[in-house]
Amino acid sequence: MERVYNFSAGPSMLPLSVLKKAASELTAYGNSGMSVMEMSHRSKVYGEIFARVKQSLRDVMKIPDTHEVIFMQGGATAQFAAVPLNLLGEHKTADYALTGVFSTNAYNEAKKYCSPRSVFSGETERFIRIPGQDELQLSGDAAYLHICSNNTIYGTAWNYIPETGSVPLVADMSSEILSRPVDISKYGLIYAGVQKNMAPAGMAVVIVDKALIGKELPITPTIMSYEKFIKADSMLNTPPTYTIYMLGLVLDWVKDHGGLYGMNGLRRERSETLYSFLDSSSLFKPVADPASRSMMNVTFRTGSDELDARFVKEAAAEGLVNLKGHRLAGGMRASIYNAMPVEGVYKLVDFMKKFERENG
Amino acid sequence: MERVYNFSAGPSMLPLSVLKKAASELTAYGNSGMSVMEMSHRSKVYGEIFARVKQSLRDVMKIPDTHEVIFMQGGATAQFAAVPLNLLGEHKTADYALTGVFSTNAYNEAKKYCSPRSVFSGETERFIRIPGQDELQLSGDAAYLHICSNNTIYGTAWNYIPETGSVPLVADMSSEILSRPVDISKYGLIYAGVQKNMAPAGMAVVIVDKALIGKELPITPTIMSYEKFIKADSMLNTPPTYTIYMLGLVLDWVKDHGGLYGMNGLRRERSETLYSFLDSSSLFKPVADPASRSMMNVTFRTGSDELDARFVKEAAAEGLVNLKGHRLAGGMRASIYNAMPVEGVYKLVDFMKKFERENG
Repeated sequence: MERVYNFSAGPSMLPLSVLKKAASELTAYGNSGMSVMEMSHRSKVYGEIFARVKQSLRDVMKIPDTHEVIFMQGGATAQFAAVPLNLLGEHKTADYALTGVFSTNAYNEAKKYCSPRSVFSGETERFIRIPGQDELQLSGDAAYLHICSNNTIYGTAWNYIPETGSVPLVADMSSEILSRPVDISKYGLIYAGVQKNMAPAGMAVVIVDKALIGKELPITPTIMSYEKFIKADSMLNTPPTYTIYMLGLVLDWVKDHGGLYGMNGLRRERSETLYSFLDSSSLFKPVADPASRSMMNVTFRTGSDELDARFVKEAAAEGLVNLKGHRLAGGMRASIYNAMPVEGVYKLVDFMKKFERENG
Repeated sequence: MERVYNFSAGPSMLPLSVLKKAASELTAYGNSGMSVMEMSHRSKVYGEIFARVKQSLRDVMKIPDTHEVIFMQGGATAQFAAVPLNLLGEHKTADYALTGVFSTNAYNEAKKYCSPRSVFSGETERFIRIPGQDELQLSGDAAYLHICSNNTIYGTAWNYIPETGSVPLVADMSSEILSRPVDISKYGLIYAGVQKNMAPAGMAVVIVDKALIGKELPITPTIMSYEKFIKADSMLNTPPTYTIYMLGLVLDWVKDHGGLYGMNGLRRERSETLYSFLDSSSLFKPVADPASRSMMNVTFRTGSDELDARFVKEAAAEGLVNLKGHRLAGGMRASIYNAMPVEGVYKLVDFMKKFERENG
């Protein structure tokens, strides 16, 4: 069976070499006589894997010593609760920029624990753009400002880091982490579900400034406590051991491909190829505001629901799958994460040109 | 590399045939052109896998229609919070039987949300036994009674179902689920981290009586809401898709080996082989009270820390690994879950006999 080009928004493609390596080690890892899946998380052999993956992430992302790395379960959705539970402290409010579905979900979850403020909402504009700095009505007394740096559903991204003064900046980077260099020191906290650019689904990576730790609310479930996870080095309970191992293989692949500068180059090639065709197409129209375009999730449409559906179906027959847009956004979406080969994008554009000729 | 017999308490052995099947499908599943790890959880192909696994679990465990099945992240530790958050309702207390470390952890976590009562504590006896029904001081006004049906660290198990009248019984079955038939109708809720008998680490299975749903506390994180997970059929957010697939392969293996009656026969063979040797040994002594013995985790010791350490080391050299007891319990522990071949236990007993002759 030939592998397809999978444009899914997540879970999404993993590098083929990573999958092959995982398959080759699945029944026995090194000299251990067992699969990584079967290893006690407290064993020496697994401890070495774990330490190496964590260091590898620190190296690849250039995470400064001021920040801790935590592996938690529950994806970004768990972090929607964990962020306020851990960071509110004495504060009664936190600022949220509503630029899509997931940032709105985070905002609504925070209402369980405080009175969050919306500092911007793109809802009336159907979330097609990111606010400028001058549009952000920041509160002085907020525990943090929460943003979603890349909005998977609508295909927008923050192409600047908002200035927040002394208020910590918290960013959900689920759909763009590992795709470009990030100045971690600008952020109080970064979190990301791993299922798009890092590993199979089932984990979130949290990168948090140590200065923010130590003020969790008493009702914080132990499984969501940053402080307890840091103290236990993410081994408070059994972590998702195999997912962490897979993250390690993906990080090796990132290093082999130029690190985050290499990833950034690839994402530019993929996204510029697609956007430059869209900007010149007579049939397909890009959806996001040009200044707010995501390089990871490219949204577009023909203007006809019937034609959109036909495009998605015919593309799938050519091995270009999962191009249907999210049900809330309609149209099409090409999610082009790290593991999408640039050839997949070239093939997609070629097919779009053909479709345009036949249906334009 | 030859595979070892891995007596780890969890994560632990998986059937070799399951690992081989997973390896063979790792780069491409069926005609999908992608790995299960890469599939969108909303895709048709993954939806079919998911539905099949869930039905398979219902079939194997004979789960009645009164009970829902949920897949959640965070292992049993997340459930320590989720159980009170979802089940307390108007109740101000819940009963907990403290028969080991994890049941005590569950009790302590509940203190964040109510005033739980300890209806039994085995701590002064070093947790070597399970209370009889007449020892349980049940409250009339408890939201539920929580037990840990098999205690991994001390090697004890509830060998009867406690009578609780109209109070729902909640059981943490992490270390024995799928090892024997269970009358689900006797339980308000059963939960289990999957990393011992079900799948690689990173998920919990929750089986809950629908009659208990609909009274979660307002502070319940969405990621812990049974009601919301039931409504979304465990797809509220991206579930640990690959772990669920692996659970499906394990369930196929269970079916091929006689279902839960088959598993029960195998666990009897393994545990009786080991206990009957221990009862006759002049060197090794079983730790748990005979009436409270676990068939999954067999704890024993020589009485000499130095000899215990030597035994663990020499056994490992023979391919019998992870026999060291938990640091809180000391001595040795052989965890003999479903995937431990009976041959592994025979080999262990042969080695123990040899060690006894040389050191007795």
